[in-house]
Amino acid sequence: MKPSIKNNETGVFALGGLGEIGKNTYGVQFQDEIIIVDAGIKFPEDDLLGIDYVIPDYSYIVQNLNKVKALVITHGHEDHIGGIPYLLRQANIPIYAGPLALALITNKLEEHGLLRDAELHEIGEDTVIKFRKTSVTFFRTTHSIPDALGVVIKTPSGNIVCTGDFKFDFTPVGEPANLHRMARIGEEGVLCLLSDSTNAEIPNFTQSEALIGDSIQKIFEKVEGRIIFATFASNISRLQQTAEAAVKTGRKIAVFGRSMENAVVNGQKLGYIKVPADSFVEAKEINHLPANETMILCTGSQGEPMAALSRIANGTHRQISIQPGDTVVFSSSPIPGNTASVNNLINLLSEAGANVIHGKINNIHTSGHGGQQEQKLMLRLMKPKFFIPVHGEYRMLKIHSQLAEAVGVPKEDCFILGNGDMLALTPETARVAGHFNAGDVYVDGNGVGDIGNIVLRDRRILSEEGLVLAVATVDYKKQEILAGPDILSRGFIYMRESGELINEGQRILFHAIRKALKEPNCDEAALHTAIVDSLQPFLIEKTERHPMILPMIMELD
Amino acid sequence: MKPSIKNNETGVFALGGLGEIGKNTYGVQFQDEIIIVDAGIKFPEDDLLGIDYVIPDYSYIVQNLNKVKALVITHGHEDHIGGIPYLLRQANIPIYAGPLALALITNKLEEHGLLRDAELHEIGEDTVIKFRKTSVTFFRTTHSIPDALGVVIKTPSGNIVCTGDFKFDFTPVGEPANLHRMARIGEEGVLCLLSDSTNAEIPNFTQSEALIGDSIQKIFEKVEGRIIFATFASNISRLQQTAEAAVKTGRKIAVFGRSMENAVVNGQKLGYIKVPADSFVEAKEINHLPANETMILCTGSQGEPMAALSRIANGTHRQISIQPGDTVVFSSSPIPGNTASVNNLINLLSEAGANVIHGKINNIHTSGHGGQQEQKLMLRLMKPKFFIPVHGEYRMLKIHSQLAEAVGVPKEDCFILGNGDMLALTPETARVAGHFNAGDVYVDGNGVGDIGNIVLRDRRILSEEGLVLAVATVDYKKQEILAGPDILSRGFIYMRESGELINEGQRILFHAIRKALKEPNCDEAALHTAIVDSLQPFLIEKTERHPMILPMIMELD
Repeated sequence: MKPSIKNNETGVFALGGLGEIGKNTYGVQFQDEIIIVDAGIKFPEDDLLGIDYVIPDYSYIVQNLNKVKALVITHGHEDHIGGIPYLLRQANIPIYAGPLALALITNKLEEHGLLRDAELHEIGEDTVIKFRKTSVTFFRTTHSIPDALGVVIKTPSGNIVCTGDFKFDFTPVGEPANLHRMARIGEEGVLCLLSDSTNAEIPNFTQSEALIGDSIQKIFEKVEGRIIFATFASNISRLQQTAEAAVKTGRKIAVFGRSMENAVVNGQKLGYIKVPADSFVEAKEINHLPANETMILCTGSQGEPMAALSRIANGTHRQISIQPGDTVVFSSSPIPGNTASVNNLINLLSEAGANVIHGKINNIHTSGHGGQQEQKLMLRLMKPKFFIPVHGEYRMLKIHSQLAEAVGVPKEDCFILGNGDMLALTPETARVAGHFNAGDVYVDGNGVGDIGNIVLRDRRILSEEGLVLAVATVDYKKQEILAGPDILSRGFIYMRESGELINEGQRILFHAIRKALKEPNCDEAALHTAIVDSLQPFLIEKTERHPMILPMIMELD
Repeated sequence: MKPSIKNNETGVFALGGLGEIGKNTYGVQFQDEIIIVDAGIKFPEDDLLGIDYVIPDYSYIVQNLNKVKALVITHGHEDHIGGIPYLLRQANIPIYAGPLALALITNKLEEHGLLRDAELHEIGEDTVIKFRKTSVTFFRTTHSIPDALGVVIKTPSGNIVCTGDFKFDFTPVGEPANLHRMARIGEEGVLCLLSDSTNAEIPNFTQSEALIGDSIQKIFEKVEGRIIFATFASNISRLQQTAEAAVKTGRKIAVFGRSMENAVVNGQKLGYIKVPADSFVEAKEINHLPANETMILCTGSQGEPMAALSRIANGTHRQISIQPGDTVVFSSSPIPGNTASVNNLINLLSEAGANVIHGKINNIHTSGHGGQQEQKLMLRLMKPKFFIPVHGEYRMLKIHSQLAEAVGVPKEDCFILGNGDMLALTPETARVAGHFNAGDVYVDGNGVGDIGNIVLRDRRILSEEGLVLAVATVDYKKQEILAGPDILSRGFIYMRESGELINEGQRILFHAIRKALKEPNCDEAALHTAIVDSLQPFLIEKTERHPMILPMIMELD
């Protein structure tokens, strides 16, 4: 059912972020005014073979482009800003973002050749963006990247609050969350809260970044050799804490990896990285300094094969290789799909003689998302009339919804929605007012949306079973095989060592094709069937494998 | 360097299990007597596309078959017995195993048609196996499967101890570990200890199975609807505890999934599952009983797509589907590579209305491997002269080696070895005495060792980029194209929607092939080069993708 919002209703919806971690893209609509909050990408799961990113289907925005007033950004992580270039190509919307997010978006748009036409506005916590019927204000939160903002969209139906990603860090590296403003927003009244569900399965209160700083400092004090420190480039508070620990323990810092270099430059420019400029040295100088006076800050904490740390570990990095006595610190935790790569990297580093410090038990990493206690604190502060858990897989949304009930939001006022569902709100009521298409769109190379399920299914079969190609040139009239049949395989068996299998397969094909050619009305489809029907049982019997069989028949021109 | 063991030395080696979790296969050799301990498989990591299992290269055993006296099995897990059919096909060795392991091995050999020729011996903790120069004795340990045994191989150089997989569970479901025998073995003197390193990264003492039983009992008392309980079929103590909780709370048990059915039958036969026989009901009866009187015990706790639980969740199971009010218990923790599948399964179950209980915080699963404290306890009890950490990736072996140092084994007496390394021991000395080939062998379908790196590389490219096939029939003498060129693609782009790209590609190929045919001495290789060199840059420019290009040239007969 197409969504239909009445004139006195405010619509709330998501293009991405419901039932998934990633591609956060939310919307609030009152009459002819639509505000979009965030435009993220999702990193593909393993079964999306070869896909680079997943973005939402932006059709709803494109179809309603005349109504869309603004894209408001909560913070600069890829799952909140990564979709912007793809969205802007279809719909050039004015963008409002805090200083760091804006710097990252600017880089991104420049790379995509979209910067010239983009309309960018820098915002701060006190910015008020006014439109005819709606307006947007902000509140400071804490997260694993500086400049994280929650968003309040004021509509004639009431105020809609999007928390963005948050934790309550009472001792953060930068500014603390603005608890008092959140309390005022709650007192003024929140019609609907959209709140981060990422850590809904974690009962604890998430550790403060300050604790991590203490652990880093202690490690730096104890280690005698070189320190190689890997973390997320976007976690600029972590970079500041690490740089500070290096300075305090008399170590110069060399930065490796393009995204880390950019992060340090941005962090210094915006004032988040505050150590003296001469604390940093060029990469090439690092080998001339004593081991206990050096610290290497690098990318690759997720085991990415092309990142600095992997190249240092496997000896393909231009400037640095592991020396016995080096200490490698992973200030990160592996994203589930990366566990094996990270473990392999740790093995490689250990074998090369490095001492490796990793894992949560060392207190060298903490999440940017609040656990259940923080989610309840947000719910208590905002005391919304209606609640939509967002930014989570189904099981997280469900738990978050149960938390809301526990702090007093009636069960019937909590809505576990899917992408494309439209919730229509009045000051008193909420109803699901239809659904629009908001499926996944795959980005592969420069292709957006041209890879579908058929291509993915083929990639899956090819990856597990390989393919066998059978080609013949025929003359239908003379009922003759003019050339072939030839067999070629890839990813199936090693052809050079399987000559007998191939020869026997060709014999089987020859007879099958000749027989089919003699049937009345033989055509290409009939020959394809003859090839598959004769070759497939033979290959299954001989190998117990099911390669994709690709028949190809040529005719003379 | 080929291993050379002197006449007064005892060789200790591994075919698998060093630098990896899986395919445990260890060996002890004195003169013309070799004892093999375990013969496991490894489950492939994600990058081994389409591979079913990995087994060791058994060449060393085959070459020394006249010396091999016995294959002794520590317990019945796949990573300790899964390789037996593949080993036996190359080398028919007498097998000694405890009752449960023997039952599982018998099933396995029957499936492979190898049972008739196998020589199988049942052993217990008190068995002594005597050969001319060596003998083998055992000691009871605790693990996540009943009948776990450690192995002592007595040689003229001294005693070699293989712990097998173990934890120290002081309140297990079956018999406790035989601490006193371990102490006596230590007092008699251990020349070399090979000990389980799986949990070397875990500082804690692993939780007892008894605690898990308490948690299961508490859950069963609270739940009002149906219970669907998923765990590892081989964890028969867990099955007994679950069955007991079901009986105590008035629930009948239905068993789903082939391996679970086998486990329950074996467990009852061997006396490990002790609830009254009428506690179990046929699968088809379960729908006729009240919800609070039923418990479904099933496979699929790792999110395996074909296992019972996945089929129940997605509605394709013959007998059972999820009803609102069902409680699904995952008494397991996901193996790293399975995290995403397990999470998707939990989402699916939650969406269908089930309440899902999972994760360690509920105390419903515990590891079968001891943590650092238990590894140190084993080292203290055995007080070996030399130490080889086994059953672990490199980083685990390294930590386990550091633990051995901490409890008094000098660093130079700890050996972190790789598969195929030969350690030669006298009562006083240890030296690495060479290396033999002990690489990975891949099993895919019924092929053993016929998939190599080239086939895997092709599968990887095909899985991420797909393939483009370019075929033409030519006459070299007339320098003419007789048919084609035709293009066919799979896993690259959706061909029906890419007509223009294909047409342009064919035009480019036509010109490239015609030009190449006019060159002197044009042959098939030259045409292949012409096809790849013309098509590849075109496809990269248009799509930013790098599909595998497969050229095929046919000639008339």
